[in-house]
Amino acid sequence: MAVNLTAPDPAALRPVAGVELGFAAAGIRKPGRRDLMLMRLAPGARVAGVFTQNGFAAAPVRICRERLAARDQMRALVVNAGNANCGTGEQGLQAARATCEAVAQQLGCAPDEVLPFSTGVILEHLPVDRIVAALPQCVANLGPENWADAAQAIMTTDTVPKAASRTVEIDGVTVTVTGMAKGVGMLQPNMATMLAFIATDAKVESKALRRLVREVADASFNRVTVDGDTSTNDSFVLIATGQAPAAEIAEASPAYARLRETVTEVAVVLAQSIARDGEGATKFVTVCVNGAADEDEALRVARSIANSPLVKTAFFASDPNLGRLLMAIGNAGIRDFDPARVDLFLGDVQVIERGGRAASYREDDGVRVMKPEEITVRVELNRGSASTVVWTCDFSYDYVKINAEYRT
Amino acid sequence: MAVNLTAPDPAALRPVAGVELGFAAAGIRKPGRRDLMLMRLAPGARVAGVFTQNGFAAAPVRICRERLAARDQMRALVVNAGNANCGTGEQGLQAARATCEAVAQQLGCAPDEVLPFSTGVILEHLPVDRIVAALPQCVANLGPENWADAAQAIMTTDTVPKAASRTVEIDGVTVTVTGMAKGVGMLQPNMATMLAFIATDAKVESKALRRLVREVADASFNRVTVDGDTSTNDSFVLIATGQAPAAEIAEASPAYARLRETVTEVAVVLAQSIARDGEGATKFVTVCVNGAADEDEALRVARSIANSPLVKTAFFASDPNLGRLLMAIGNAGIRDFDPARVDLFLGDVQVIERGGRAASYREDDGVRVMKPEEITVRVELNRGSASTVVWTCDFSYDYVKINAEYRT
Repeated sequence: MAVNLTAPDPAALRPVAGVELGFAAAGIRKPGRRDLMLMRLAPGARVAGVFTQNGFAAAPVRICRERLAARDQMRALVVNAGNANCGTGEQGLQAARATCEAVAQQLGCAPDEVLPFSTGVILEHLPVDRIVAALPQCVANLGPENWADAAQAIMTTDTVPKAASRTVEIDGVTVTVTGMAKGVGMLQPNMATMLAFIATDAKVESKALRRLVREVADASFNRVTVDGDTSTNDSFVLIATGQAPAAEIAEASPAYARLRETVTEVAVVLAQSIARDGEGATKFVTVCVNGAADEDEALRVARSIANSPLVKTAFFASDPNLGRLLMAIGNAGIRDFDPARVDLFLGDVQVIERGGRAASYREDDGVRVMKPEEITVRVELNRGSASTVVWTCDFSYDYVKINAEYRT
Repeated sequence: MAVNLTAPDPAALRPVAGVELGFAAAGIRKPGRRDLMLMRLAPGARVAGVFTQNGFAAAPVRICRERLAARDQMRALVVNAGNANCGTGEQGLQAARATCEAVAQQLGCAPDEVLPFSTGVILEHLPVDRIVAALPQCVANLGPENWADAAQAIMTTDTVPKAASRTVEIDGVTVTVTGMAKGVGMLQPNMATMLAFIATDAKVESKALRRLVREVADASFNRVTVDGDTSTNDSFVLIATGQAPAAEIAEASPAYARLRETVTEVAVVLAQSIARDGEGATKFVTVCVNGAADEDEALRVARSIANSPLVKTAFFASDPNLGRLLMAIGNAGIRDFDPARVDLFLGDVQVIERGGRAASYREDDGVRVMKPEEITVRVELNRGSASTVVWTCDFSYDYVKINAEYRT
């Protein structure tokens, strides 16, 4: 069902020096399914992360925040699918800590050098025993080439594993950036949802890494939406192992922008994969907003379009329903909004001109550009020079089916 | 398909002295279907209104705002279905003005004593000629008893006409409040949507009437949501003809609260009718939020639940999906939110206690309370003493069907 998305070729996922991956079937929710992933990092690897804004942040998110506030050098990440460890109170925090302790024991590091991540059902207690029992298997198969297997082990209702890899020359040295993600809705059916891990062998100074993870998130994961809901477990973590023989990158380094560009490229592929694999998706939709007074305004308009159930059902129907697009723009809550300035294009066809139906517009052209699996909507607000892009999918019968029949 | 909603008994809709209603089939969008409604008001009737917040406000909304800013005594309302007269620029404003002029000519009043309302497709020009041609028929059948017929004439994709009536004793005089509404989504399939007209024969001072319409809207129409989208044409107008032999009601009058209570009662019935007739609705859902720090906070939590596609599909599936409810509360963006204070009830069953699954909760009980066509969700935030209620419907296959197949 995913829109123009296939599983990554394992050979195309380049290892990152200083990162080894292991996986196991711990039977957390379903037996015989890979649901545990361990990432071992070489000494000196730095980690920075951004996490969900949801008030019901899951136990592992709370522990990641706490640990990353105290130190940025980490030795391991442990990720389970099948159970979100959210809405589980003090017992949930203890469960996440116990998981990290077991990892620390296996790998010979301190518990606070381990970051925990969970995704899956909310409000159920984490079966720590099963995780601890499966950890030795993860450790036994740790290897630098396992990105594809690891990407599969963190899936919940994803239909396709999501991973991508790029290299970039920095100061004459080839630096690698490889990442994986999971998630098919901002919140999947009862699943608590988006996890993304990107690693590079570049050496990045602490403050620069913290800035980098935020900037990359803003340009990638924060621009994708499936249903407008924000999960309790969303986490994006960026790892810099520092194993490449290149100089350390600080915020002021000329190399900072080059590295950001490459990490963003990987993150955008992963973020778009989430929309392409969106629940019930039959279309991949790119919403561009130009000419906004500022970026916040551009983002409000783009999200108002991308999250409107009425616009999304029109995409599903391949229906050039201009009234709904107009309505969604008008609903973005822009101050001193002047409808008479708005132009709107579907693909290469101008459909709205100065707030009304474009004189040149023919319904046949609208129908033609709405047909393909990939649709671009471009809004020109003609108020300023800020722009943004948001990626989303359509809203189909299967979205309702998947979300109504889950658990039954 | 509407949930526990049937057409009003015409005999139960009490005439309001000073209000006559006429209707006609003008062939605006479909031939042979009633789509034009005229309301004639006796001299001295005062009118106040609240209108859409959408930036693409339709031409009739702009004219209503302009006219009501200049005067509050009006002689007529003219309402057409089938065409929203929105996204139609200067030509749209002229079309709305021309409609009012034709009404003024027929009724012998000034054009600016006439308020225009439109609902229907967006971005198409209003066929003024057809409206003008059908007006004499509206005038010919003007009568005080026609509320049910009039409620039918303003319908678009509504499956049931919506009208209600109440009386209240004020200073020993029986005062009548009768109203009608249309709308089945905040925005229907391409339709620009909610119109509501409530009339009373009470005499209400100008400033009190303007306050009354806002207060009633906040307690009724602003608390209903189908898909979270706000139409370009939403209008709620309150008419006080002053024909009842009772004293004029000012803001400070003891009678103000009594009248507000009765008008609110009628408005709540109409607002709930909109959710009951929501597109594809199979459930009517009441979301109560108590213990909020202030009303804004209560409303944010209630709307976050009522608008979440994941929560709404769970209602459709009769699935007590606690994780989604938790997620929606966490997404309301409440400052200093403490999950550990939250209690949640489905019907009479406590499902969440202090932010986790209630110890007493049994899945069977959750299933039992999610089964009926009417479901109540109650959130106790335990932060303060503010409360609110929001009404909504579920999200079914038919919602997608109706919105994807419209126009095709």
